[in-house]
Amino acid sequence: MSKRMKICINTGGGDAPGLNAVIEAVTMAAHNRQWEVYGIRSGYAGLLNTDEIIPLTPEKVDGIASIGGTILGTTNKGNPFMMPVANAAGEIEQRDLSDRVMENFRRLRFDALVAVGGDGSLEIAHRFAAKGMPVVGVPKTIDNDMGGTVITFGFDTAVSIATEAIDRLHSTAKSHDRVMVVEVMGRNAGFIALNSGISGNADVILIPEIPFDIDRVCDKLMDNELHGRKYAIVVVAEGAVPKGGGVVVKEGATGGRQHVVLGGIAEHVAGEITRRTGKDSRSLVLGHLQRGGSPTTFDRLLSLRFGAAAVRAIEEGRFDHMVALQSPDIVLVPLAEALQITKRVRPDGDTVQTGRDLGICFGD
Amino acid sequence: MSKRMKICINTGGGDAPGLNAVIEAVTMAAHNRQWEVYGIRSGYAGLLNTDEIIPLTPEKVDGIASIGGTILGTTNKGNPFMMPVANAAGEIEQRDLSDRVMENFRRLRFDALVAVGGDGSLEIAHRFAAKGMPVVGVPKTIDNDMGGTVITFGFDTAVSIATEAIDRLHSTAKSHDRVMVVEVMGRNAGFIALNSGISGNADVILIPEIPFDIDRVCDKLMDNELHGRKYAIVVVAEGAVPKGGGVVVKEGATGGRQHVVLGGIAEHVAGEITRRTGKDSRSLVLGHLQRGGSPTTFDRLLSLRFGAAAVRAIEEGRFDHMVALQSPDIVLVPLAEALQITKRVRPDGDTVQTGRDLGICFGD
Amino acid sequence: MSKRMKICINTGGGDAPGLNAVIEAVTMAAHNRQWEVYGIRSGYAGLLNTDEIIPLTPEKVDGIASIGGTILGTTNKGNPFMMPVANAAGEIEQRDLSDRVMENFRRLRFDALVAVGGDGSLEIAHRFAAKGMPVVGVPKTIDNDMGGTVITFGFDTAVSIATEAIDRLHSTAKSHDRVMVVEVMGRNAGFIALNSGISGNADVILIPEIPFDIDRVCDKLMDNELHGRKYAIVVVAEGAVPKGGGVVVKEGATGGRQHVVLGGIAEHVAGEITRRTGKDSRSLVLGHLQRGGSPTTFDRLLSLRFGAAAVRAIEEGRFDHMVALQSPDIVLVPLAEALQITKRVRPDGDTVQTGRDLGICFGD
Amino acid sequence: MSKRMKICINTGGGDAPGLNAVIEAVTMAAHNRQWEVYGIRSGYAGLLNTDEIIPLTPEKVDGIASIGGTILGTTNKGNPFMMPVANAAGEIEQRDLSDRVMENFRRLRFDALVAVGGDGSLEIAHRFAAKGMPVVGVPKTIDNDMGGTVITFGFDTAVSIATEAIDRLHSTAKSHDRVMVVEVMGRNAGFIALNSGISGNADVILIPEIPFDIDRVCDKLMDNELHGRKYAIVVVAEGAVPKGGGVVVKEGATGGRQHVVLGGIAEHVAGEITRRTGKDSRSLVLGHLQRGGSPTTFDRLLSLRFGAAAVRAIEEGRFDHMVALQSPDIVLVPLAEALQITKRVRPDGDTVQTGRDLGICFGD
Repeated sequence: MSKRMKICINTGGGDAPGLNAVIEAVTMAAHNRQWEVYGIRSGYAGLLNTDEIIPLTPEKVDGIASIGGTILGTTNKGNPFMMPVANAAGEIEQRDLSDRVMENFRRLRFDALVAVGGDGSLEIAHRFAAKGMPVVGVPKTIDNDMGGTVITFGFDTAVSIATEAIDRLHSTAKSHDRVMVVEVMGRNAGFIALNSGISGNADVILIPEIPFDIDRVCDKLMDNELHGRKYAIVVVAEGAVPKGGGVVVKEGATGGRQHVVLGGIAEHVAGEITRRTGKDSRSLVLGHLQRGGSPTTFDRLLSLRFGAAAVRAIEEGRFDHMVALQSPDIVLVPLAEALQITKRVRPDGDTVQTGRDLGICFGD
Repeated sequence: MSKRMKICINTGGGDAPGLNAVIEAVTMAAHNRQWEVYGIRSGYAGLLNTDEIIPLTPEKVDGIASIGGTILGTTNKGNPFMMPVANAAGEIEQRDLSDRVMENFRRLRFDALVAVGGDGSLEIAHRFAAKGMPVVGVPKTIDNDMGGTVITFGFDTAVSIATEAIDRLHSTAKSHDRVMVVEVMGRNAGFIALNSGISGNADVILIPEIPFDIDRVCDKLMDNELHGRKYAIVVVAEGAVPKGGGVVVKEGATGGRQHVVLGGIAEHVAGEITRRTGKDSRSLVLGHLQRGGSPTTFDRLLSLRFGAAAVRAIEEGRFDHMVALQSPDIVLVPLAEALQITKRVRPDGDTVQTGRDLGICFGD
Repeated sequence: MSKRMKICINTGGGDAPGLNAVIEAVTMAAHNRQWEVYGIRSGYAGLLNTDEIIPLTPEKVDGIASIGGTILGTTNKGNPFMMPVANAAGEIEQRDLSDRVMENFRRLRFDALVAVGGDGSLEIAHRFAAKGMPVVGVPKTIDNDMGGTVITFGFDTAVSIATEAIDRLHSTAKSHDRVMVVEVMGRNAGFIALNSGISGNADVILIPEIPFDIDRVCDKLMDNELHGRKYAIVVVAEGAVPKGGGVVVKEGATGGRQHVVLGGIAEHVAGEITRRTGKDSRSLVLGHLQRGGSPTTFDRLLSLRFGAAAVRAIEEGRFDHMVALQSPDIVLVPLAEALQITKRVRPDGDTVQTGRDLGICFGD
Repeated sequence: MSKRMKICINTGGGDAPGLNAVIEAVTMAAHNRQWEVYGIRSGYAGLLNTDEIIPLTPEKVDGIASIGGTILGTTNKGNPFMMPVANAAGEIEQRDLSDRVMENFRRLRFDALVAVGGDGSLEIAHRFAAKGMPVVGVPKTIDNDMGGTVITFGFDTAVSIATEAIDRLHSTAKSHDRVMVVEVMGRNAGFIALNSGISGNADVILIPEIPFDIDRVCDKLMDNELHGRKYAIVVVAEGAVPKGGGVVVKEGATGGRQHVVLGGIAEHVAGEITRRTGKDSRSLVLGHLQRGGSPTTFDRLLSLRFGAAAVRAIEEGRFDHMVALQSPDIVLVPLAEALQITKRVRPDGDTVQTGRDLGICFGD
């Protein structure tokens, strides 16, 4: 019979619908192997302080898969390799406390850690793996910009919420012949804007991967008006950038040039549209609405599969890997490999092409 | 057998979930009496231009009750009693075109008008009634501030959308020990903030009817922190005002004093909370999300009942009235009477009291 | 200063969305008055066994208002006035244990009970009140058939779920030119069928208050077909009955005549429609789907208002009453009075009339 | 410049959420290439009768992606290779009308057909391709049992609806210590039961791919009871079968042995559970609820991508293929190849393993 393991799980970074489902699956899969399982609050730093460690039981996780947030909290006290600590003089210094984390991990007799997090957290997981910690990663990013996996949990929920919001804006934009500019998440990757914009029947989608020319956007809106569609929905990723950077620029501290958009990109785009076309334009920032609350069924299932797969990876001793979806299967990908890839929308991919086929303007 | 009537319907002002259901019910109830029914686009002004008048048939309205927006549009070309018209010199003048509206109404041989709108539109309806137009009103206000009726359609949907948004914000606010300030609709009346705040388990609700002291709000947040609840949800109506007006004031053009809150009340409140407590605070404005999209089941039914009741009122010749809910019945209220009442949240009513019983702070 | 009270709450009968919200409001309103509050499992019988009594704290009820079910369970071990008990011979006898309940209530030093339940539970509450127990009732019925209150919690959720189901059935019925017969709850009162049928654009609604003639139903379906609408949605309350009882009858034990409908009324109606019109008909019973799960925003708020009002009633010493909605206010109604009224759909009320105006057939 | 094409689209078989989105994307992608596009009602047979062919325009498809059903109807008048036709004597004969379909297709000068359907419809498409019709397939199956594609549209919606139903049943099952047996779609493949059962926190999942032993199911329920969980949710695919067939057998007409389950498998399972364990068990058949209504965001996007890809396939002249998802890309798969694969749940796949890890019983 296999050894009775003692494992722990932490979650790092922002909220993502599905976190509780990962915790439920890790707990249940461990419990059904007669293992012990503990939750660590406050990210890796929680391993420095046993007050932050709580036993996880079937009772504690029963039914939490459908609930938003995380029962562990995502407050992250920092990167143990560069932990901010007050010195004797009361000044804040950055110290490498990773050895103390390792020591504590062993002292508490943990056999493995499931690290749930974005590329930052998994980078740290990889460094701990190098120090000998048996760690399995579970990728987490709302924006869907992590490599090695077709998709991560929370993304489907974010797209659904954004699409529902766009649906609601249609009727009011239409009633008032108005241009509604909706800003969705996506600093480096435009997946949420792309998918919700197409699903939500947007007229224009602006994403970081396709720098936009505001004149092309205005052309589209005026063309629409000539065809009797006086209102419009513009979906813009928070990281969308104007082509050539000609609109608002400022010398940055490093001597480089930098776009400075006051009040967010949506407000900027709405302002430019009004200035150039005279159309009544309004902006709306969905913000945190996209990352909280109940996961969709898709995200629940994906998160449960990720969590269970992480426990099986531990059982098989496959550490320094992360679980990943390569549809329809869950596979293990070496962290070193996954961390080298950043996923972005492919401007020549079929989803963007679908948008173009539907007549959506990408501002290029 | 009763006369074969020929009626029309217009809708005025902003979007409200349920408008299509009113149109469906009016159309079907008229159709089933073998009446003719027409929809008028562009509010009352549509009566000046037959291009804006379309026949309504069972086919056109089949299934629209569950769809947001309105098939008639809410673009309102103005009040016929003070219509902006260009004179010979190209200047815009306000002219009273109400007689031409009356003339056209008769010329088209309409027997009655169903006017769906807020107090502005119903005020106009009442004036036309005085001129002899057989008109029945259907009250419409998202904010629920109209008199004579327990509730109007669109309000339940707005409260539901706001509550769902607040639900989603809980998990992310909690994950990050953050104060989220959510601004909802309600310029003069705080019903949406009150109902969604209570339903959504808010910590603080700020409404126009109860001027707030920002210090009381901060006291509440710090008390919560002492009891281990580090995050908070603050729901604020767009028309909420600080007590005494001491926070941000500016001499207005009329010599009076006026609160000037840049960026909206939510941003102001979030800023003050951060300044006074050091807590990480963010603001979010729900805006148009609250007034678009599919109506809730409650609003569908109420709208259908309103529409059918309006047709029965025409049948009975009870003009210059509006339909109203006096639970559980739909009744008719004279427009003159309904227009004199403005409904506001009663600070001593049982709903506010429920909030206080639950421990919610109203800033007073 | 007022006395520090010690109160308890029980819930009886079936599940109803909003039960947890009532419990949350009672707990918080008591807690904010520095009272102690306890939850009793297993209905009144829980008072016979201290194992069934648990302290309720703000932590335990935080956020439960939006969650379905009840943290207390609704398992009801029976009516203490006729409790089934095994005697020495192992036979089940019914005994009156109400005095023991009273005794225990006093011994535990409770000052008041909040009894949440349907007419059965509130009848018992009223009998205990007569024995001197300070009790306040909170009415609960999915079917909306309780007197003294415009509406009870859970009903809006049930109507919403049924309407959403009907919405979904439209597209598939239409695609296949099929008659879908949907059975919804309502043994004595047809409110759920009526409201969901109108909101869901049904063709036929059959309720207990309007005995139906299957021929009238078939006439309607064939008329529709002549007008090009080949599919149909029939919503039937579980307690709907054929007119005259001519369809399926059987001599009952009491010598009376009784309808016996095998497989439920929906299956019966679907069968008759197929037999008489040759149309492809299917039946679907929504059953328990209607009474579980998250409450709508409307039900959350109503439940919270009911719970808080019950605590205020205790504070004011107004026992032997139940809280009730008389829109827009929550009021107190003597239990004796409320228990004498059974609410049923009024066939001449405006909601049925709305259905008729829309062209819906009621089978009469 | 490329030729101005004239294409048509038909849809076959049952309803599936996403059909309208496919139609919208095909229409818009064709329109934006200046092509003409027509919709064919009544499946392939519509090509025999020009009354069944309607022009599709941007106005007709605007916003339909989010609406359930199909604007073309799915009434299928049959397989043109074996069309039921009345002969002179009034008897129904099956005739091969495929040549007439081909002739009409050419006479109407269509350049290509987009055939949306399940394996039956795509089999016919493949046969027409062999006769020289330029056809591109779009796979459609709620059950997700079609080969060549990771997933088809409608499946995510069906799983979501089933999961939401299961969520609602939890609270009422729990309140009454009851076993709820829910029957979901899946005659040959258990994907809906598997995914909704895991997402919905079921205790038992029974699928066609894993024959079940009712004793194992009862063991699980009694084990749960010993651990304090008295209620249970059993999700059963309509095609689930008992192991060995020992439970209910009957000599069939062909002399073979056949399971005969009256009232559906859910009712059978519920009955057996009650008989063997004495637990209160109820069954519920979700039926048509799963295949109607609005598609999820996931299904909207997938359907739009499928539709647009079908038009691109026509542009590239890649006929006798179907569009397929090979995540994250849409690809083209030869129909001949796709039609040979039937997809079923892999009992050793990671999703079933996730279920086992969570403690779910599969009855084996």
